[in-house]
Amino acid sequence: MKFCSVCGEKVELIIPEGDNRMRFVCGQCNTIHYQNPKVVTGCIAQWQDKILLCRRAIEPKQGLWTLPAGFMENEESNRDGAARETFEEANARLTDMTLFSVFSIAHISQVYTMYRANLVDGEASAGIESLDVALLSENEIPWQQLAFKVVEENLKLYYQDKAAGGFKTHYGEIIRLNDGQLNVECF
Amino acid sequence: MKFCSVCGEKVELIIPEGDNRMRFVCGQCNTIHYQNPKVVTGCIAQWQDKILLCRRAIEPKQGLWTLPAGFMENEESNRDGAARETFEEANARLTDMTLFSVFSIAHISQVYTMYRANLVDGEASAGIESLDVALLSENEIPWQQLAFKVVEENLKLYYQDKAAGGFKTHYGEIIRLNDGQLNVECF
Repeated sequence: MKFCSVCGEKVELIIPEGDNRMRFVCGQCNTIHYQNPKVVTGCIAQWQDKILLCRRAIEPKQGLWTLPAGFMENEESNRDGAARETFEEANARLTDMTLFSVFSIAHISQVYTMYRANLVDGEASAGIESLDVALLSENEIPWQQLAFKVVEENLKLYYQDKAAGGFKTHYGEIIRLNDGQLNVECF
Repeated sequence: MKFCSVCGEKVELIIPEGDNRMRFVCGQCNTIHYQNPKVVTGCIAQWQDKILLCRRAIEPKQGLWTLPAGFMENEESNRDGAARETFEEANARLTDMTLFSVFSIAHISQVYTMYRANLVDGEASAGIESLDVALLSENEIPWQQLAFKVVEENLKLYYQDKAAGGFKTHYGEIIRLNDGQLNVECF
């Protein structure tokens, strides 16, 4: 950020009075431009004994497999966002949505919310952001070709819960260590 | 938003190619300025049979009671944000934090995450954004003087769970009806 989006003047990076963090502030109109984490919302969509994965048509991680998910939009609910992303990426409709997990990824300032849901009719096909979609059993999950750590962790928790006979709602954090490795902690 | 924060030129409100929503787009440097919901994170902090409430020193709802909560910052985890807000507003330290609820409030583009936690030592005092703090039993909760619907709903769910003998993780939506009334749905 270099310019004020309200008045067009150059912004400065300073700690505003009464604050304790650096913010972009406009010296002309005094607007403080706060920057906050973004929410990514998606789902584990179930059909019989299978779940829905999408192969990414876009960067990052083009060609790898993911759960349908994307940035939540203004003026939609978190749950509606997950359903919208699933429809956009996989032309699939959801029912019986329940919150499955919240993952916080501080180093990229993102919060991931994932729902567990059922497909309405088992129908799914590649949307514009997907190369392919598939309904897969546990033994068919391409663990070595998953796009994101948060997807892998959600799938692990899902099959853990399934094996234990009941689904919970999870909170976890994905932390980037000094060597670049990603560490996962669930609370 | 009137000006591009990258190059300072005027922005236009248009639907970018391949998108289906109006975005602020810069005609000079082509930056698309996405706007996304903000996360508010906070907690129900327990001490013996009481919980911590804060009386707001700032608008909106100055003078009314709330759970400690505030906007999550970049590069912090959702859980750490709740602990930070509790320390800022009530000089109180938390332990044993578990996710209690996610509430989506679409008409103001906010997602509220609330944790259930214990106070480390029962100590709490008003921070700069609070007029007062109090540790209150259920029969002392000022139900008619709560600042926000989402606070009221969290407290209702908390005491429901407590009475039932076990705490769950909840997802709910607060929806503004045409007459301005707020409707609550839990899923």
